[in-house]
Amino acid sequence: MHDRADFLAGQYFDIRLEVHAPQNGSEAIGLPLDEAFTFTIAKGDGEAKPVTEFFGIEEAELEKWNFTWYEDLFARDAKKPSVVDVAAKAYRRLALYEPGEYTATLHYNNGSATTANWFVRDLAEERKAKNIILFIGDGMTTNMITAARLIAHKTINGKYQSLMQMDKFPVLGHQMTHSIDSFITDSANSASALYTGHKSSVNCLGVYADSSKDPFDDPKVETIAEIFHRLTGGHVGIVSTAYIADATPAALTAHTRARSEYGAVVDSFLNGITNYTWTKWDGPDVLFGGGAEQFYSPELGGETYQEKDYYAEFAKKDYNVLWNRTALLAAPSDERALGIFTVSNMAKWLDRNVYRSNLNQSLHPSGDESPALDQPGLKEMTLKAIDILQARSGDKGFFLMSEAASIDKMMHVLDYDRALGELLELDDTIKATVQKLNETGCLKETLILVTADHGHGFDVMGSVDTTYLMAQNTDRKKRDAVGTYQNSGLSQYINTGNLTYTDSNFPSNWDPRYTLFQGLMADPDRRETWSVRKDGPREPAVELEEDSEDFYANPEDGEGGILLNGTLPVENDQGVHSLTDVPVFAMGPCQEKFMGVFNSIDIFFSMAECFGLARGTPS
Amino acid sequence: MHDRADFLAGQYFDIRLEVHAPQNGSEAIGLPLDEAFTFTIAKGDGEAKPVTEFFGIEEAELEKWNFTWYEDLFARDAKKPSVVDVAAKAYRRLALYEPGEYTATLHYNNGSATTANWFVRDLAEERKAKNIILFIGDGMTTNMITAARLIAHKTINGKYQSLMQMDKFPVLGHQMTHSIDSFITDSANSASALYTGHKSSVNCLGVYADSSKDPFDDPKVETIAEIFHRLTGGHVGIVSTAYIADATPAALTAHTRARSEYGAVVDSFLNGITNYTWTKWDGPDVLFGGGAEQFYSPELGGETYQEKDYYAEFAKKDYNVLWNRTALLAAPSDERALGIFTVSNMAKWLDRNVYRSNLNQSLHPSGDESPALDQPGLKEMTLKAIDILQARSGDKGFFLMSEAASIDKMMHVLDYDRALGELLELDDTIKATVQKLNETGCLKETLILVTADHGHGFDVMGSVDTTYLMAQNTDRKKRDAVGTYQNSGLSQYINTGNLTYTDSNFPSNWDPRYTLFQGLMADPDRRETWSVRKDGPREPAVELEEDSEDFYANPEDGEGGILLNGTLPVENDQGVHSLTDVPVFAMGPCQEKFMGVFNSIDIFFSMAECFGLARGTPS
Repeated sequence: MHDRADFLAGQYFDIRLEVHAPQNGSEAIGLPLDEAFTFTIAKGDGEAKPVTEFFGIEEAELEKWNFTWYEDLFARDAKKPSVVDVAAKAYRRLALYEPGEYTATLHYNNGSATTANWFVRDLAEERKAKNIILFIGDGMTTNMITAARLIAHKTINGKYQSLMQMDKFPVLGHQMTHSIDSFITDSANSASALYTGHKSSVNCLGVYADSSKDPFDDPKVETIAEIFHRLTGGHVGIVSTAYIADATPAALTAHTRARSEYGAVVDSFLNGITNYTWTKWDGPDVLFGGGAEQFYSPELGGETYQEKDYYAEFAKKDYNVLWNRTALLAAPSDERALGIFTVSNMAKWLDRNVYRSNLNQSLHPSGDESPALDQPGLKEMTLKAIDILQARSGDKGFFLMSEAASIDKMMHVLDYDRALGELLELDDTIKATVQKLNETGCLKETLILVTADHGHGFDVMGSVDTTYLMAQNTDRKKRDAVGTYQNSGLSQYINTGNLTYTDSNFPSNWDPRYTLFQGLMADPDRRETWSVRKDGPREPAVELEEDSEDFYANPEDGEGGILLNGTLPVENDQGVHSLTDVPVFAMGPCQEKFMGVFNSIDIFFSMAECFGLARGTPS
Repeated sequence: MHDRADFLAGQYFDIRLEVHAPQNGSEAIGLPLDEAFTFTIAKGDGEAKPVTEFFGIEEAELEKWNFTWYEDLFARDAKKPSVVDVAAKAYRRLALYEPGEYTATLHYNNGSATTANWFVRDLAEERKAKNIILFIGDGMTTNMITAARLIAHKTINGKYQSLMQMDKFPVLGHQMTHSIDSFITDSANSASALYTGHKSSVNCLGVYADSSKDPFDDPKVETIAEIFHRLTGGHVGIVSTAYIADATPAALTAHTRARSEYGAVVDSFLNGITNYTWTKWDGPDVLFGGGAEQFYSPELGGETYQEKDYYAEFAKKDYNVLWNRTALLAAPSDERALGIFTVSNMAKWLDRNVYRSNLNQSLHPSGDESPALDQPGLKEMTLKAIDILQARSGDKGFFLMSEAASIDKMMHVLDYDRALGELLELDDTIKATVQKLNETGCLKETLILVTADHGHGFDVMGSVDTTYLMAQNTDRKKRDAVGTYQNSGLSQYINTGNLTYTDSNFPSNWDPRYTLFQGLMADPDRRETWSVRKDGPREPAVELEEDSEDFYANPEDGEGGILLNGTLPVENDQGVHSLTDVPVFAMGPCQEKFMGVFNSIDIFFSMAECFGLARGTPS
């Protein structure tokens, strides 16, 4: 039961009921498991009706299972789990059409009742935007945008001579990212909130979490992509620099409590949900990203759903399969395209553009273990996606989600330079998108949103004289290399005026003497030099003893730097997400809905309203 | 010379010219000091005229001095300063009235020239707001607002049941805080940017920094308070929880390169600038804060300007002098008031309301070394300030600056609980202000702004089981007390539903078992327990050896906690400011000017435009 759930009128959802009988621990009350529970729903002040009558559906079968949990860390250390018996039912693919309040009541244990308040928002059904492009900078905070601006844009006397494209958006908002089970969210449940209007729990994609062991039986909620396609026939594009089964793209079509079910996620992109009757889904027009290992055959080492070759599965449904930038640029705009450009996450902007020798790894998307040297960037993927979506969607319009995934991934490993490079690539992509839409006359009919799904505790506090740091012999003396306030000085990343990257704003020098004194606030043990890692993404902490789950500063990372002890449990080899509200930049139809401070789920409802997706009656 | 300075039409400013002759170091070029430099100004494409002709003023006297600096940390360690001889002139109390571009050129060294571009913004002279209230949460970031909301407002299923008053403001913006000399600002130059529209340097109040030794001869720029009072006769109020000579209040009337000239700052509140002809200034209607040591007689240990008794000085000019909350509440609304409630900074919300025994210190504002037990909070000071300003300003309107100073001060000492308490008190103050203005019918004619002057690198990454932490024997094991993602759980600060503070949102329990896993990113060595400090504000690091300037984790702070090494130079006993853009919340006339991302100086120009302060001709 989830109190105060908000629904879009006509949105499909499942109901899961659970009655718990704790067998031990502080919650045990000695009652037997009640298998005779009942469930009623009332609209407003109206009569409470049994769920079967309310929706005109069959009674569901009773299910039973148990689960265990630890009450606290002492119980975990003592290996004393609490056991809970569960009786459950599920009702599937329902919808509420009439706006207003509903009261849902579970009756159990001979007189006990738990009530949930549901609310169907009363939204206009008129469509205001033809297209929506949702850019997600995974893990991107205001602090990171500020730092990226500093290294890529020139200042004179404290004033920028150019600005980020995001800075030019007319509307700014903040979204609150907390989830149901925790005030710190992961990318799965935050993406689910953005796409479905329903808060969820850590690791959940498009479902509320139930307590059963089956990761595919949790109660689903329909996503913006699914509703848009089902009701209007609109076209959908999905682009990410992550492996494409990763949470942020996955949450558009997958419905599972376990984001790590990557194979099933890839199947859901193509086939939607197949274990239950669900929504109409015909696959996206565009699916671009990394993660070839969930596509190529298990014979080549692929880890695919039902051991199928998903390149072949997509090809069977008339997708052009693209493995590199050259093929991407050459692909026809009037045909659907699957572009998988590498095993695992895509190469970072810094490695594709500055430290190119780092691309020499066995990551070719074919699975043949040759290097994936010809990878596109987020900009090229996004512009091609728009080409295809514009050509194919006609009057129906499109929804495109484009994710700069490795802002998050590089912040996790404390690789600040690569993270900021990814953020700058996102901004460059947004700039090119605005320009393209303007040229094709589509800018005014397209709502462009730029936001994040959560933060990392990151900021910049000054500068570091890296030459001085390396010349000192003790850690305490090395700390004198840090300059704060007036000793921060000015950015040396833009020091030549001679940018390598025409028409784009990136640092002209990634390796200046005076770097940024920057960091995260939740770290493993690590060694800091505050210098760019030229040999590829950073690995700050390693196990000194195999399988010890005790991570310590990596001796091969940050040589000559300051050894710093972390605050995270030593089983962590990288940083974690943070609490902060994240920014929302909006431009286009309905932009005014994104002013001020709001909840992450409001982004779903505002997008749905802008597309006119509320339905007062079944269609 | 300061390239690309923006001016309000009619704003007073000084010009300082300097020609430098470096005597040694990398910038030395062997030329003698040029004392015959000249200076011209051209409007647009017009003729460049000598400065005396352009403004119709007398030629200024030549001044000469020298200064020294260190080229880098190696030069500092070797004690090898660079010496620079300087020839200089100053032209004072000038103004530009005609909007548009100006070119100012310094001619020196027999043919060299340095050009600055000045720009007078073309703003409407029509007044749109009767009053402006500018709330400054010193050091307040979006991350801190998010954390404060979490501990003071209840969530169900990831959704807040109540919101901060700031969250309800219709307009949100971000301001960029960088200063001229550094990308990290202090509170002096950031306040100067907010109040004057001119970026400045660290430690500067209402001036550009020159290189002379005299802290009172730097070129001044007129502040929003000064212009508003001079042109319209509008009334001014100044409220802060800091010692009142601190930078954020000081920058409204003081003009000095050295923010530490506290005595002179207090004199400027009352008498304005006295060493040069400057603007019309008659003192504020209201001056409320701490810092009694700059008021009471030197016989009692006061450190006052020219050894005067400033209580007496203010009383001579018809101010009621108030020393406690009781007197504040009883003060007449139609008379001017000086309220100084303690020596040093005012007591924190947490100590005034929860841990009251910490008020037992010798800080009475009289200087008699008794405790200052009856201190008001920011809310009471602000509401009384509004009473007085409304009663006295009549049709002329008012400008009120109200600062929650100790968000910054408590973040500096890593006292997260007290910092968030101050932030919540600011929000409570804003809430009460909106309510009061609504009741008195003034809400619609008042622009309310809430912003900050800079950030601290702060965030929350999870929770800490403080019981578990204290029960472990080693630091590495204590780190297991940290819970991230799903193990963060939900906030336990709001756990009783039984708030002590009627009509206000503060935590009901400041000392729960599960606290916030929070921190800064630039620290001295310290010991973290992530628990509230019940004995008063935290002192994280101390010198183990007197005068060693080598600070180490305070053995008396955070006993039983995890010892963490800092990243700051060891001469630091506290944290430092950060880079991040800070939020701007706006409500009222002209609120739309504060949408999106802009520079800190734009806040001055938008306030000035809203007050209609631009002047195309001398008045």
